[in-house]
Amino acid sequence: MSLQPIDPSRDFTTTIDTLGTCTVNSPVRYKNFVSDDDRVLYDLNMERVRKRLEQNRAISFEYAGPRERIYFDPANLRAAIVTCGGLCPGLNDVIRSIVHELWYMYGLRRIRGIRFGYAGLNPDVGLPMLDLNPDMVREIHYDGGTMLGSSRGPQPVDVMVDTLEREEIRLLFAVGGDGTLRGLKAIYEEIERRGLKTAVIGIPKTIDNDIAFVSRTFGFETAVGEAVESLRCAHVEARGAPRGVGIVKLMGRHSGFIATHAALAQGDANFVLIPEVPFDLEGPQGFLAALEARMALRGHALVVVAEGAGQKLFEDLGEDKSGNRKLGDIGLLLKKRVVAHFKAIGKPAAVKYIDPSYIIRSVPANPNDCIFCKFLGQHAVHAGMAGKTGMVISSWNNLHVHVPIEMATMHRKQIQPDGILWLSVLESTGQPQYLVNAT
Amino acid sequence: MSLQPIDPSRDFTTTIDTLGTCTVNSPVRYKNFVSDDDRVLYDLNMERVRKRLEQNRAISFEYAGPRERIYFDPANLRAAIVTCGGLCPGLNDVIRSIVHELWYMYGLRRIRGIRFGYAGLNPDVGLPMLDLNPDMVREIHYDGGTMLGSSRGPQPVDVMVDTLEREEIRLLFAVGGDGTLRGLKAIYEEIERRGLKTAVIGIPKTIDNDIAFVSRTFGFETAVGEAVESLRCAHVEARGAPRGVGIVKLMGRHSGFIATHAALAQGDANFVLIPEVPFDLEGPQGFLAALEARMALRGHALVVVAEGAGQKLFEDLGEDKSGNRKLGDIGLLLKKRVVAHFKAIGKPAAVKYIDPSYIIRSVPANPNDCIFCKFLGQHAVHAGMAGKTGMVISSWNNLHVHVPIEMATMHRKQIQPDGILWLSVLESTGQPQYLVNAT
Amino acid sequence: MSLQPIDPSRDFTTTIDTLGTCTVNSPVRYKNFVSDDDRVLYDLNMERVRKRLEQNRAISFEYAGPRERIYFDPANLRAAIVTCGGLCPGLNDVIRSIVHELWYMYGLRRIRGIRFGYAGLNPDVGLPMLDLNPDMVREIHYDGGTMLGSSRGPQPVDVMVDTLEREEIRLLFAVGGDGTLRGLKAIYEEIERRGLKTAVIGIPKTIDNDIAFVSRTFGFETAVGEAVESLRCAHVEARGAPRGVGIVKLMGRHSGFIATHAALAQGDANFVLIPEVPFDLEGPQGFLAALEARMALRGHALVVVAEGAGQKLFEDLGEDKSGNRKLGDIGLLLKKRVVAHFKAIGKPAAVKYIDPSYIIRSVPANPNDCIFCKFLGQHAVHAGMAGKTGMVISSWNNLHVHVPIEMATMHRKQIQPDGILWLSVLESTGQPQYLVNAT
Amino acid sequence: MSLQPIDPSRDFTTTIDTLGTCTVNSPVRYKNFVSDDDRVLYDLNMERVRKRLEQNRAISFEYAGPRERIYFDPANLRAAIVTCGGLCPGLNDVIRSIVHELWYMYGLRRIRGIRFGYAGLNPDVGLPMLDLNPDMVREIHYDGGTMLGSSRGPQPVDVMVDTLEREEIRLLFAVGGDGTLRGLKAIYEEIERRGLKTAVIGIPKTIDNDIAFVSRTFGFETAVGEAVESLRCAHVEARGAPRGVGIVKLMGRHSGFIATHAALAQGDANFVLIPEVPFDLEGPQGFLAALEARMALRGHALVVVAEGAGQKLFEDLGEDKSGNRKLGDIGLLLKKRVVAHFKAIGKPAAVKYIDPSYIIRSVPANPNDCIFCKFLGQHAVHAGMAGKTGMVISSWNNLHVHVPIEMATMHRKQIQPDGILWLSVLESTGQPQYLVNAT
Repeated sequence: MSLQPIDPSRDFTTTIDTLGTCTVNSPVRYKNFVSDDDRVLYDLNMERVRKRLEQNRAISFEYAGPRERIYFDPANLRAAIVTCGGLCPGLNDVIRSIVHELWYMYGLRRIRGIRFGYAGLNPDVGLPMLDLNPDMVREIHYDGGTMLGSSRGPQPVDVMVDTLEREEIRLLFAVGGDGTLRGLKAIYEEIERRGLKTAVIGIPKTIDNDIAFVSRTFGFETAVGEAVESLRCAHVEARGAPRGVGIVKLMGRHSGFIATHAALAQGDANFVLIPEVPFDLEGPQGFLAALEARMALRGHALVVVAEGAGQKLFEDLGEDKSGNRKLGDIGLLLKKRVVAHFKAIGKPAAVKYIDPSYIIRSVPANPNDCIFCKFLGQHAVHAGMAGKTGMVISSWNNLHVHVPIEMATMHRKQIQPDGILWLSVLESTGQPQYLVNAT
Repeated sequence: MSLQPIDPSRDFTTTIDTLGTCTVNSPVRYKNFVSDDDRVLYDLNMERVRKRLEQNRAISFEYAGPRERIYFDPANLRAAIVTCGGLCPGLNDVIRSIVHELWYMYGLRRIRGIRFGYAGLNPDVGLPMLDLNPDMVREIHYDGGTMLGSSRGPQPVDVMVDTLEREEIRLLFAVGGDGTLRGLKAIYEEIERRGLKTAVIGIPKTIDNDIAFVSRTFGFETAVGEAVESLRCAHVEARGAPRGVGIVKLMGRHSGFIATHAALAQGDANFVLIPEVPFDLEGPQGFLAALEARMALRGHALVVVAEGAGQKLFEDLGEDKSGNRKLGDIGLLLKKRVVAHFKAIGKPAAVKYIDPSYIIRSVPANPNDCIFCKFLGQHAVHAGMAGKTGMVISSWNNLHVHVPIEMATMHRKQIQPDGILWLSVLESTGQPQYLVNAT
Repeated sequence: MSLQPIDPSRDFTTTIDTLGTCTVNSPVRYKNFVSDDDRVLYDLNMERVRKRLEQNRAISFEYAGPRERIYFDPANLRAAIVTCGGLCPGLNDVIRSIVHELWYMYGLRRIRGIRFGYAGLNPDVGLPMLDLNPDMVREIHYDGGTMLGSSRGPQPVDVMVDTLEREEIRLLFAVGGDGTLRGLKAIYEEIERRGLKTAVIGIPKTIDNDIAFVSRTFGFETAVGEAVESLRCAHVEARGAPRGVGIVKLMGRHSGFIATHAALAQGDANFVLIPEVPFDLEGPQGFLAALEARMALRGHALVVVAEGAGQKLFEDLGEDKSGNRKLGDIGLLLKKRVVAHFKAIGKPAAVKYIDPSYIIRSVPANPNDCIFCKFLGQHAVHAGMAGKTGMVISSWNNLHVHVPIEMATMHRKQIQPDGILWLSVLESTGQPQYLVNAT
Repeated sequence: MSLQPIDPSRDFTTTIDTLGTCTVNSPVRYKNFVSDDDRVLYDLNMERVRKRLEQNRAISFEYAGPRERIYFDPANLRAAIVTCGGLCPGLNDVIRSIVHELWYMYGLRRIRGIRFGYAGLNPDVGLPMLDLNPDMVREIHYDGGTMLGSSRGPQPVDVMVDTLEREEIRLLFAVGGDGTLRGLKAIYEEIERRGLKTAVIGIPKTIDNDIAFVSRTFGFETAVGEAVESLRCAHVEARGAPRGVGIVKLMGRHSGFIATHAALAQGDANFVLIPEVPFDLEGPQGFLAALEARMALRGHALVVVAEGAGQKLFEDLGEDKSGNRKLGDIGLLLKKRVVAHFKAIGKPAAVKYIDPSYIIRSVPANPNDCIFCKFLGQHAVHAGMAGKTGMVISSWNNLHVHVPIEMATMHRKQIQPDGILWLSVLESTGQPQYLVNAT
């Protein structure tokens, strides 16, 4: 990941200035408001920072947090929340936190819940909005999923902005992944084009944890925790049969973070296959040969594979309607090829294949994610009330910061094959560093 | 299930009498030994029992429990344990209980663990036995699976009995399902034919809970607990998408006990499809029409299907090598047909399909199953040490009893479509009592 | 437990006959209604039953289940539910099941929820009732506790019956333990005295599992599961310190069922102390000497004690306002005495004391208890609608039956010190069979 | 927390230089070794960093990670691990990670496990060391606690260093809290005084998460997760009784991190009392008045209190043998005073008090902590093999760094009463910002 020097302040607060006159009758008296002049360094390496600062090229982000002066008058404002894309643990916690913060801290009384993603902003689909208040969200964090419902895919931008205008929604919180944030960027640009005083704040959601300039996304830790259970079961199955091979397919279209973290946490995986690290199946350095060696040594094996791994083994399958490349099913392919390989060499293996799929993403958030979601919601509200727009709430270097949508959608975060995380996986699994045949 | 009057005592203690002279130096002093004359009634209905008793046709079972006199001399006996078939929560608990009971209560010091099912009794496969003791089984109950490994399929009976003779194993505990018990019956008959003084005790294992004359099998409750998690996730998914349908496939080749219990416990299922209750897909009274009605009413639905349900929808797929009829994949079929149906009527559904498979059976036993396994192991040892053979340990009317293998393998236990359990499912789901078109 | 021959039918259906004319428009068509003539045997021992039948002294219970003819007309009936005493896992499941069954199966539309136990039947306390319907109970089973609230202690019987009359409640479901059932018996007798056509049905609730003629009470298995976690922690603590002793105090005023089951399930306890088995602290055969021996052998120990154990070690502390004898805190006493003992012999022990208390009873029911509660609620409604009164729903020999309140409150169920359960604990712990000094 | 400018490099690599000649035959080929010249900034605020850099006063830490050249020759080195103080989730994971990293990556074959803390370094106590290898630690991470055992309190420094010399241990890993690190500092200084070539590396362990310059300690997240369960139970209890008050005492002698995080994650607490924020009990602005107001409003309340809170309410109790001030039991005091207060005003409350104590710290680490422990162990080994000494492995700004023991033991990390964390608690609970009477 080679970063181009970006001036992240460029996108901020250009269309919407802080109003500067509105005071909030909040029950909590903040002493230490956050100033827009305070910024968080992107990099932590002292020497690199020194050089960048000397050249005035240091990348930095705005701190998240409450501002002394806010832009919107809570008495007149209507805000709305929308959740988009696949489910992810913590969606309800984020909704609850936003509603609580708007209601209790800023005194807002008009909060709309948009149903089933961006579809709820398209009147043709016919999904009436909900009116949200603390009572309605009191216990939603006990459940997985999202009380608002969600959906995939885009809707016409002008239609959505028309809806925001008609409904007098001047502050929109959108929780979603890469596609959602691109959609939000389009909404933001359309708002700007029309000269509206409407702010849009994104809260990045990706169970794959692969959004740029966002070191941690909510629900990821919970998902890893669930994935660990599947690995444990596959390990038990592999040891329970003669020549047992457990194969677990986990989420991760572009990045192997869930597979990697689950394997590190569980501790019994012998192979982890991820999109970032190519591998051959056949050949003396290929995966099957390595698996054969492992089986000769111990008689059982546990293989973890991210869904986006090994895609070069498939034909081009075209794109789905969201414009994402369709993935070949690497889990089923591995299962088939492993069975065939060991049959061919006269040592049949008992292959147990687990695809936990939705089980991993539909659970309630774990306590650590609960807290994280709470802060995300609070900071999103602070940012929105202060008149920020076109940005997402990010966690960076363990601090909450504002990141322009443009940056967050620039590229995907991936695992570095020569970085400490992947090396740790190699150490933990004992798998060969390269599963590719010399050419 | 129409029971023929059987005299269950017929099969007991015919080849092997209790020695009557051996006393055990057990640290626990039993006061209340169980006598073979005491028997447990099969039926509980007072009037039926009255009639049967008058006709001397009442079915009854031997009580399980410690006998005052035992057959084998612990100083000279070698026992062995084998676990067969698919994994099931509690296997390690049963192994641990048997080892503890043999070692601590009867003072046995020679206990063999046979590896990977009946394969471990076939020298050609080459799986050396383990020597078991309390240290080796100290913490195995913390893990799922079986420390001995398991495998499916039969082995030649004479070879297995040869191995028992050669290894001087005179007391064999076999933990397994229908196939395993049939295999054990063959071993028992071969032993009888050869006139050997070797006892075989079965401990019924079936995650489907479908063994005759056994009201509860170990691991079933744990499996239901895991299945509930999948249903919860599918429910969250179904509600999280516009027109969401969650489909969960659960174990149950011949009987829908897991599907039924999981649906009752979780409480959100709208349809439960099991092998015992036939259904049509198409037609005005068929499943798809009923699902359509449900979707029109509430906009989302949760469907639970046992793997053996709806097999009339498939071609005959022949048998696998264990002689079981191959099942069509009803889960995938339902998924495909539901998607197609709602697409065809112009109201596409978001179908989320979950097949938790191995996740359900590889976990450690829950506390209630732990206790149950402990008792099964203890009673198996009591029976074996007393010289019982050709029988299994069963739980009947909440008591532990001895059931002849012949009875346990006579037929499969199934859900009665007009019984209280299934009626309760109908009440809980609200699904139509019949999903079959009038002819 | 020596049973007097009782005619359990005596208390049944004497004041209230089945109406015999009301038909229910239930969506589920029952084929196999239960007849009052069918009865379940109390005993299962064939020879004892034979003798009793010959003498016409066999004890039996009515089967629970739907009756073909019901007493109350659902169109005119108002029912009510009350939960009393300490919390227990599954209370919400029972409430939900009763509401569902009344509403969906019998078509009742007037269901009252009485708040905070019998206090809610006393207008002086001023707790307005709730109107219950399926929407209100939709997700209550996800939570522990009781949505109605609960309280301890009696209220004046005439006041309570006045309230039932004024509120036109003619069918009352009371969920509670020994005290609650005694209170219900008083209400039942007052109703009978006044000649009212009001039915009262009890659902036994006791986390201690100590109600007579009830083999299993709801929530008990869940509580054992939680207790197991405490034992696991105490075991870890005991092994983690030099000369570590873990002591866990569990519920069980009169009976050691939770302590016993938790110890059997967890498997690491070295001593289990329960109310049914007396023990000395000091002396050569006392507990401290036995603990010292264990510590000398292995260097750590795990002790489980039921709160009602060892009460002879305390002064008489009088009674609380419910009339129960106040218990001395055996957990703290043990902790103190163990510390003092090992200090006195110059080998100080690191004693870690855990009193999980409310944590064990406030959790949601586990899946098996969920199902059990569902059936209890359904059977309670079947019984009530059929005009049964003065009885409780019991599980006996794995079947649901009707037991007269009089029987259920006759005495407490306890562990037999010479029975298979306690012997199994002795085997599992290895503790001496007697911890009492010879006299 | 006002930081003095410290030169953290001062303590590093002064006694022990990197050998510079030893190469390791590790199966994983590192490309990107970490250089000692690369340093991580302590602060992230751009303007503050700019000023500090200009003044050459920027605080920074060494990066953790593998060094290209190592100091010790794995063929000749003997390393040892010791775990001290109270249990904490993840101890076994850290041990396992250290053993794996030493064995597999650096090829070390002589690894000693010191039993029961520093006591194991005192021959007078007589605790023989264990020889550790991968087989011995294979499954220890499934369990809570520490396989080595632990103990509190110091041992004579010269005796411990004598032991290290006699046993030829030249690399010591000590896992422990404040007291342990002070002890390690003493060992380090004695080693320096004697001119030995022995390195000592600390891994900070504190379930309270209160070590300076360490933003996260292992096990803390797991502990919070367990604490959340207690809060949930207390909330259920509070709502289940008329005028119910749940009080939960959690760990936190000097800092309220566990109480704070648990309350934020669980979401139902109405009051959180921590050592950093003083409060009065009585008086118009005191806690009891605020609780009374809450009870008047909603009828139930949940109070979370850290064990070190409100100590001004107690007499000085002196110090324990580790030199820590003895704490008054604030949980029991609150319970007593709350009961008395509501009784006095004629509105008795049902107070349910939960002290989960050991239950919170004896569980296995959750997946996120597992990964964290893995990295801590790996980085400790990298540091030790590179010849670092007198330092601890810290997580700072989400990166692993080296921190001199001197810094880590300088003061305790605490919650800032005007910081974002505490303000978030105030928002979440709705409790008054100040519970102190004006003077």
